[in-house]
Amino acid sequence: MTHDDVGRLIERLAFASIDHLRPHTQGHAEVIFCSGKTPGQVTAIAERLAAAGGEFLATRAEPAHVEALRARFSRAEANELGRTVYLPPDPEPAPTGRGTVLVVTAGTSDLPVAEEAAVTARALRNRVERLTDVGVAGIHRILTQTDVLRSAGVIIVVAGMEGALPSVVGGLVKVPVIAVPTSVGYGASFGGVAALLAMLNSCVAGVTVVNIDNGFGAAAAASRINHS
Amino acid sequence: MTHDDVGRLIERLAFASIDHLRPHTQGHAEVIFCSGKTPGQVTAIAERLAAAGGEFLATRAEPAHVEALRARFSRAEANELGRTVYLPPDPEPAPTGRGTVLVVTAGTSDLPVAEEAAVTARALRNRVERLTDVGVAGIHRILTQTDVLRSAGVIIVVAGMEGALPSVVGGLVKVPVIAVPTSVGYGASFGGVAALLAMLNSCVAGVTVVNIDNGFGAAAAASRINHS
Amino acid sequence: MTHDDVGRLIERLAFASIDHLRPHTQGHAEVIFCSGKTPGQVTAIAERLAAAGGEFLATRAEPAHVEALRARFSRAEANELGRTVYLPPDPEPAPTGRGTVLVVTAGTSDLPVAEEAAVTARALRNRVERLTDVGVAGIHRILTQTDVLRSAGVIIVVAGMEGALPSVVGGLVKVPVIAVPTSVGYGASFGGVAALLAMLNSCVAGVTVVNIDNGFGAAAAASRINHS
Amino acid sequence: MTHDDVGRLIERLAFASIDHLRPHTQGHAEVIFCSGKTPGQVTAIAERLAAAGGEFLATRAEPAHVEALRARFSRAEANELGRTVYLPPDPEPAPTGRGTVLVVTAGTSDLPVAEEAAVTARALRNRVERLTDVGVAGIHRILTQTDVLRSAGVIIVVAGMEGALPSVVGGLVKVPVIAVPTSVGYGASFGGVAALLAMLNSCVAGVTVVNIDNGFGAAAAASRINHS
Amino acid sequence: MTHDDVGRLIERLAFASIDHLRPHTQGHAEVIFCSGKTPGQVTAIAERLAAAGGEFLATRAEPAHVEALRARFSRAEANELGRTVYLPPDPEPAPTGRGTVLVVTAGTSDLPVAEEAAVTARALRNRVERLTDVGVAGIHRILTQTDVLRSAGVIIVVAGMEGALPSVVGGLVKVPVIAVPTSVGYGASFGGVAALLAMLNSCVAGVTVVNIDNGFGAAAAASRINHS
Amino acid sequence: MTHDDVGRLIERLAFASIDHLRPHTQGHAEVIFCSGKTPGQVTAIAERLAAAGGEFLATRAEPAHVEALRARFSRAEANELGRTVYLPPDPEPAPTGRGTVLVVTAGTSDLPVAEEAAVTARALRNRVERLTDVGVAGIHRILTQTDVLRSAGVIIVVAGMEGALPSVVGGLVKVPVIAVPTSVGYGASFGGVAALLAMLNSCVAGVTVVNIDNGFGAAAAASRINHS
Amino acid sequence: MTHDDVGRLIERLAFASIDHLRPHTQGHAEVIFCSGKTPGQVTAIAERLAAAGGEFLATRAEPAHVEALRARFSRAEANELGRTVYLPPDPEPAPTGRGTVLVVTAGTSDLPVAEEAAVTARALRNRVERLTDVGVAGIHRILTQTDVLRSAGVIIVVAGMEGALPSVVGGLVKVPVIAVPTSVGYGASFGGVAALLAMLNSCVAGVTVVNIDNGFGAAAAASRINHS
Amino acid sequence: MTHDDVGRLIERLAFASIDHLRPHTQGHAEVIFCSGKTPGQVTAIAERLAAAGGEFLATRAEPAHVEALRARFSRAEANELGRTVYLPPDPEPAPTGRGTVLVVTAGTSDLPVAEEAAVTARALRNRVERLTDVGVAGIHRILTQTDVLRSAGVIIVVAGMEGALPSVVGGLVKVPVIAVPTSVGYGASFGGVAALLAMLNSCVAGVTVVNIDNGFGAAAAASRINHS
Repeated sequence: MTHDDVGRLIERLAFASIDHLRPHTQGHAEVIFCSGKTPGQVTAIAERLAAAGGEFLATRAEPAHVEALRARFSRAEANELGRTVYLPPDPEPAPTGRGTVLVVTAGTSDLPVAEEAAVTARALRNRVERLTDVGVAGIHRILTQTDVLRSAGVIIVVAGMEGALPSVVGGLVKVPVIAVPTSVGYGASFGGVAALLAMLNSCVAGVTVVNIDNGFGAAAAASRINHS
Repeated sequence: MTHDDVGRLIERLAFASIDHLRPHTQGHAEVIFCSGKTPGQVTAIAERLAAAGGEFLATRAEPAHVEALRARFSRAEANELGRTVYLPPDPEPAPTGRGTVLVVTAGTSDLPVAEEAAVTARALRNRVERLTDVGVAGIHRILTQTDVLRSAGVIIVVAGMEGALPSVVGGLVKVPVIAVPTSVGYGASFGGVAALLAMLNSCVAGVTVVNIDNGFGAAAAASRINHS
Repeated sequence: MTHDDVGRLIERLAFASIDHLRPHTQGHAEVIFCSGKTPGQVTAIAERLAAAGGEFLATRAEPAHVEALRARFSRAEANELGRTVYLPPDPEPAPTGRGTVLVVTAGTSDLPVAEEAAVTARALRNRVERLTDVGVAGIHRILTQTDVLRSAGVIIVVAGMEGALPSVVGGLVKVPVIAVPTSVGYGASFGGVAALLAMLNSCVAGVTVVNIDNGFGAAAAASRINHS
Repeated sequence: MTHDDVGRLIERLAFASIDHLRPHTQGHAEVIFCSGKTPGQVTAIAERLAAAGGEFLATRAEPAHVEALRARFSRAEANELGRTVYLPPDPEPAPTGRGTVLVVTAGTSDLPVAEEAAVTARALRNRVERLTDVGVAGIHRILTQTDVLRSAGVIIVVAGMEGALPSVVGGLVKVPVIAVPTSVGYGASFGGVAALLAMLNSCVAGVTVVNIDNGFGAAAAASRINHS
Repeated sequence: MTHDDVGRLIERLAFASIDHLRPHTQGHAEVIFCSGKTPGQVTAIAERLAAAGGEFLATRAEPAHVEALRARFSRAEANELGRTVYLPPDPEPAPTGRGTVLVVTAGTSDLPVAEEAAVTARALRNRVERLTDVGVAGIHRILTQTDVLRSAGVIIVVAGMEGALPSVVGGLVKVPVIAVPTSVGYGASFGGVAALLAMLNSCVAGVTVVNIDNGFGAAAAASRINHS
Repeated sequence: MTHDDVGRLIERLAFASIDHLRPHTQGHAEVIFCSGKTPGQVTAIAERLAAAGGEFLATRAEPAHVEALRARFSRAEANELGRTVYLPPDPEPAPTGRGTVLVVTAGTSDLPVAEEAAVTARALRNRVERLTDVGVAGIHRILTQTDVLRSAGVIIVVAGMEGALPSVVGGLVKVPVIAVPTSVGYGASFGGVAALLAMLNSCVAGVTVVNIDNGFGAAAAASRINHS
Repeated sequence: MTHDDVGRLIERLAFASIDHLRPHTQGHAEVIFCSGKTPGQVTAIAERLAAAGGEFLATRAEPAHVEALRARFSRAEANELGRTVYLPPDPEPAPTGRGTVLVVTAGTSDLPVAEEAAVTARALRNRVERLTDVGVAGIHRILTQTDVLRSAGVIIVVAGMEGALPSVVGGLVKVPVIAVPTSVGYGASFGGVAALLAMLNSCVAGVTVVNIDNGFGAAAAASRINHS
Repeated sequence: MTHDDVGRLIERLAFASIDHLRPHTQGHAEVIFCSGKTPGQVTAIAERLAAAGGEFLATRAEPAHVEALRARFSRAEANELGRTVYLPPDPEPAPTGRGTVLVVTAGTSDLPVAEEAAVTARALRNRVERLTDVGVAGIHRILTQTDVLRSAGVIIVVAGMEGALPSVVGGLVKVPVIAVPTSVGYGASFGGVAALLAMLNSCVAGVTVVNIDNGFGAAAAASRINHS
C-alpha cells in the first residue's frame, strides 16, 4: 500500500483517528477503551466501527457508557461484572482459534477482570471456559482440576494478593500461561503491585504477564496465540 | 501416578531436589540457573540431567561455571555473550515447534539478553532467527523489516531504555509478541524498570511481558506457544 | 533596579505576593494556578493582573473558579476540556514567536492536557496547531503526518500509557520536542509514572520532559524556545 | 529491680553497651550481629558474653570475623554457608523447646539464609530439621512431604523470587508458619521485595513474615513460639 | 483421602469454591473476606459455612454486608469498630488455646485493626485481653504495664505512624510478638509503609510482621501459636 | 517518682490513655490529633485536658470536630484554614520563648499547613510572625525580606512542589531553619515526596525537616528550640 | 525516498544497524554510547561514522574505549572528566547555532555531567560557555552572574542534591532552560531522584528536564533549540 | 553591601567558587564535602579556607583525601571512624554555644555517623558529649540515662534499622531533638529509608530529621540551635 492508501484507511474525527488498518495489521478491529472518554465519544467511535465491520467491543464501560451504547445499539450485550459492551456480528461466526482459552481465577473478587478477559476472548473468535475461586490457600482446589488445565489451548490465570496461582498452574501444564495480576488486596498489595511482581518473578519457565487488571490484554494475547 | 511414583521421580541431593517429572508436566527438563550456585553444585546437577536425558542447558553461567561444565562435558557449547552452556543431544533433533521464533533487539547493548533467549529457544526445539539494533530512534530500521516480522511464528522483542519497540512491533503483526525489558540504561531507567513499565502499559493489545533481562523466560514462553 | 524599586513591583495581598517583575524577568505575567485556591482568591489575583496588563490566564480551573471568573470578566474565554480561563488583550495581538507550536496527542484521553498546552501557547503569543490520536499502536497514523511534523517550529508531544510517541516523533524531526507524560492509563502506569520514565529514557537525543499532565509547563517551555 | 540494679547489668565498653538483662527479659543472651563491626569489636563482645554465660552466637560473620573468633575460641563452630560462628555451652544442653523447628527452603540459592536460621534455632535450644529445594515450580516436591510438614512444631519457610511457597505450606498445616523472603532473584525481584510483598499478602490466614534474608529473626521467633 | 474424596469436600458455587477441608488442614473453617464481594455473595457463603459448622466469621464488612448478614442470622454479632460479623456456635465453647492473646494498641486511631484482631482471636477459640493507647510518645504508659505483658501467651502489637511499639514490647518479654502496622498516619507514612518497614527492621530478635491493617491475619497467627 | 506515682498520672479512658506527665517530660500537655477519632472521643479528651490545665489544642479538626468542640467550649477558637481548635488559658499568658517564630510560605496553597504551624507555636507560648507567598520563582520576593528573616529566632519554611525555598532561606540566615514539605503539587510531586526529598538533600548546612504537611510538628520543634 | 532507498542508508553490522539517515532526519549523525559495548564494537562503529561524515562523538567512554579510539584515531580528543572522545571535522567548522549554549553547574561534583554537555554542544556546532559552582547555598554566587545568564541563547543547568538551581535560574531569565539532575548526593538523594523530582516540579514555568546525569541529552536538546 | 562587594568575596577557582560570605550569612565558613572531589581539589579549597580563617573542616574524607590533607597541614586532626579531617584554630577557642550537644547512638554500627556529628559540632564551637549503644531492644539502657538526656542543650539521636530511638528520647525530654537515620540494616531497611520514614512519622511532637547518614547536617543544625 502507498502512504496515500494507508492515509485513506485512517478516519479522522475531531477527537480520534480511527485506524481501519487494524484488521489487516493486528488481526482484529480497534477495541474501544471507554475510560477517559465521554459517552458521546464512545458512541461515535462505536458507530464507525459497526459501520465498517458490523461489530464492536467496548471495555471499561461505566454505567453512562453502557446506557449510551445500549440506547444506540439495541443488540449490544453488556456484561456488568466485566464492564464490557459487545455488539456481536449477526450471525455470530464460529470460533476460529485452534483451542480453548481457559480463564482461571484465584478468588471471587478477581471475577471482574476474569470476565473482561472472557468476553474479549469470545469477541476475538475463541472458545472460552472458566474455572473460578481455586487459589492456593486450599491447594487441592486447583490440583483436582489438573485434567481441565491440561486440556486447554491457552490458560489465563487471574489472581490478586500474593499472585501465586500462575506459578502453580504453570508448573502443572505445558501450554502457554498468561498471568493477570489484579488490584485485589490491601496494604502492602499496593493496588496489585505485589501480585505483579510475584508473577514477573515466577520460578516457572514460560509464564508471561500483562498489566494489573488487564483482562483485555491477556485475552488479546491469548487470541494471538490461539490463532498463530 | 501415585504419591510414591511421583516421589521416586524426585532425586534428592544434599542441596537440591531434581525434578524428573518436568518433561511430563512442563514439556522439557529442568534448566540450571547458575546464579547463587557453586560450580560444583552446577556440575552435579548437570550430571544428573545429562544422565537422565542426554542434554542440559545452564543459564547465567559465570566464567567459573563455564569452565567447570566444559571440563566435565567436552561437547558442551558455551555462548559467552548469552552466558549459557548447552549440551545438545547427540545427534541434535530437528526443531519440533510449528514456526520460527524471531528475536528482535532494540540496541547492541541488549544482545546478551537476546542471546540467552536464542540459545534457550533452540534448546527447547525451535527454529530461531535474529534481527538486531532496530530501535525506534530510527523508526525506518524496523519498518523496512515488516515482512521479516510478519513471517515469524512468535516474536521476542528485547529492549532497554524507554522500551518502546514492542509496541511498534506489536502494532505491525498479528502473531504473539513477548516483550523483554533489559537493564540497559542509566539514571531514571532504574535498572530496567522504565522499560518494564512501558511494556506493561503498551497501548497495543496482546503484548505480554517477562521479568527484566529474562531472555530465558521469554524463550520458554515462546516455545510453549510454538508447541501449542 | 534597587531593592526598593524591586520591592514596589511586588504587590502584597493577605494570601499572595503578586510579582509584577515577571514580564521583565521571564517574558510574561504570572499565570494563575487555581488548584488549592478559593474562587475569591483566584478572582482577586486575576483583577490585579488584568489591571496591570490587560490580560490573564488561569489554569486547573474547577467549575467554581470558571464561574467566578466569567462572572467578573465577561470577555474571558473558558476551555472546558483544558480547564483554562483566558482573558485575551483587547485587541489580541498577533503571535510574536518565530514558528508554529504543534501539539501532538497519542490518544483521545490525553486531550485535556493537550488543550491546556494549546491555550497556554496561544496566550504566550504563539501560533498553535494540533494533531490528535496518532499513538504508536497504529504507527502509520503518525508516519503519514511526517510533513506536518517537520514544518513545525517546536513540537509538544502528549502521551500516557507507555509514552512511546515522543521517541518516534523525535526520531523523525530536527526541531525541539517537548514530551508531556499524562496520567492516562491504569495499574502499572502509576498515574503517569510509566510514561514519565519512558520519556526520560528516550533513546532519541534531544527530547526534554516536563511533569506529568503539565501541559502548561510544556507550552511555557515551547514559548521560550519559540521566542529565543 | 531498682534502676541501680538494672544499671549494673549493663556493661559499658567504649563502643557498646552489653545488656546482661537479656536472658531475664527476652529469654536468651544478646546475639552478635557482625556486620559493620570490626573483628576486634566482635571478639571483645564475644569475650564478655562467653564470660557471663559460657556461650555466644555471632551472625553475618565475614571471613575476618570468623578467623578472629576461631583464633580466640578454639571450640567455636563456624558455618560457612550460614555465615555464623557459634560457641556452644560445654556440654551442650538438650533442646528445651516443645517441638521441632522445621526449616523449609524453596531453592538451592536460598540455603545461606536457611542455614542462618537453623544454627540460630539450635543455639536457642530447639530441635531442628531441614527440607530443601521444594519450591512451587514442581508442586509435587512439597506435596509428597505433607507428613513431614504436619509433624513439625513450627515451620520456617525460606523463599526468594515470587515467594509463593509459604502460602502453599501454610495451607497444608495448622502449625505456626514464619516466612523468610530472600534476595534471590533478579530484575523485578528488587533484592527480595517481590518475595516480601508476596508473603505479606498471603491469602493463607496466619503466616507471619520477617525481614528479607533474616534467617536469624525467623529462628528467634520460632524459638519464642516453641518455648511459649 | 483420594482426589475424589477431596473433590467432594469442595463445594462449587457460581462465584466461589468453598473449601470444607480447611478445618482438617488449617484448623478452622474459611473466614469470609467481604471486601469486593456483594452482600448476596457474602450471605450465600455464610449460609454454607453455618450449615457445615454452625458458625462463621466475616471480616471487612461494610454496612451493607452487616445488614444482610444480620437480617439472615439474627444471632450474629456485629462489631462496628472492627468491621466484623461473627456467628458464634450455640453454645459458644470454652477457649482451647493454651494462653491469653493480648492485643496492644499504640493509639486510639489503631483501634479498628485491634478489634478485628480481638474478634478473630475469640472466634478461633482463644482468651483475649486488650491494652489500649500505650504508644512510645509517653514510654511510661507501656512500662507500667510490664507485668500484664509478661503474663500473656502471645502478644499482638498494633501501631501506625513510626511503628516503634513492637520493638519496645518485644524487648520486655520472652513470648511471641506479632506486629501489625496500621495505615494510621499521613504524608511520609505512605498508608502504613513507614510502620511496616520499621517493624520488619526491628532490632529485637523474634518479632514477626503481618500486612498493613491485617488484624485478622495477626489473630490467625496468634491462634496457630496458641494452639501449637 | 515511683512506678505507682507515674501510673496515677495516666488517666485511662476506654479508648485512650491520657498522659498527664507530658508537661513534666516534654514541656507541654498532649495535643489532640483529631484524624481517625470521633467528635465524641475528641471532646472527651479535650474535657480531661481542659480540666487538668485550663487549655487544649486540637489539630486536623474536621468540621464535625470543630462543631462539637465549639458547642462544648464556647471560648474555643477555630482556625478554619489551619484546621485547628484552640482553647487558650484565661487570661492568655505572655509568650515565654526567647525569640520570634517566623512562618514563611512559598505559595498561597501552602497556607493551611502554615496556619497549623502558627496556631501551634502560639499555643506553645511563642511570639509568631508570618511571611507569605515568597517562593523562588521570583527570587527577589524573598531577597527583599532578608532583614525580616535575620531578625527571627527560629524560622519555619513551608513549601510544596520542588521545595527549594528552605535552601535559599537557610543560606541567608544563621538561625535554626525547619523545613515543612507540603503535598501541594501534582504528578511527580507524589503528594509532597518531591519537596520532602529536596529538603532532606538541602545543600545548606543545618536545615532540618519534618513530615509532609506537618505544620504542628514544625511548630513543636520550633518551640523546643525557642525555649531551650 | 522509497523503502529501498532508506534500506540502503542503514548499514548492518553483526551487532549494530548504523543509521546514516540521521543527519537527514535529526540533524546530526549518530553518537556512540559506549556503555555496554566492547572497545572493538565502539571502534568499528566509529570507523563507519568517520568514513561517512569525517567526525564522530563517543560518550560514556571508559578508559578502555578511550585507549582504543585514540589508538585508531590519533586526532581524536578525549575529555577525561566528561568521559567523551570527539573526532572533530578537519578543519572544524564555525558554530552554526544562533546563540550561546551556557552550561551552569551547582557544585564541583557535578562537573563530569557538565563537561559531557559542553563537549556535545560543541560537536553539534554550538558556541559554549561555562559557569561553575554557583549553587543556591550561597545565593549571591548566581545572583551576581545575572547578566551572563541573560546573554545566553539556551541555558543548561546541572545540579544534584536538592536540584533547586534550575528554578532560581529559570526565574531570572526568559530564554529556554534545560535542567539536568545529577546523581551527586547520598542517602535520600536516591542516585539523583531527589534532584529529578525537584526539577520536574519546578514552580518556574518553562523549565524542561532530561534524565539523571544525561549531559549529552541536554546538549542535544539545546542544539535543537539553538538551530531552530 | 553592593553586588560588587559581594562579588569580591567569592573566590573563583577553575572548579569551585569559594564563598567567603558564609561566616557573615550562615555563621561559619564553608565545610569541604570531599565526596566526588579529587585530593588535589580538596587540598586547594582547604588552603583558601585556612588562609582566610585559620581553620577548616573536611567531611566524607576517603584515605586519599586524608593523606593529602595531613601531608599539607601537619596540625590537621583525622578522625578515622567519622571520616573527617579538622584543622582547628591555634589556639582553639572555647565553645561559644549555650549548652551541650549530646550525640546519642542506637548501636555500635551507627558510630561513624555519630563521630561525624561530634567532630562537626566541636568545629562549630560547641561542647560535645556522647552516649553510645543505647537502642530500644533493651529499653532500660536509655531509661537509666534520663538525667544525662535532660541535662543536654540539644540532642542528636543517631539510629538505623527501625529508627525508634528518637521517639523514645523525644518523649523523655523538653529540649530539641534532631534525628539522624543511618544506612545500618539490610533487606527492607533500604539503605536507611526505613529509619528515615520512622523518624519523619514520630508520634513525639518536635523531633526533626536530616538526611540518611548526615551527621554533619545534624551537627550544623544543633549548632544553629545552640547559638540562637
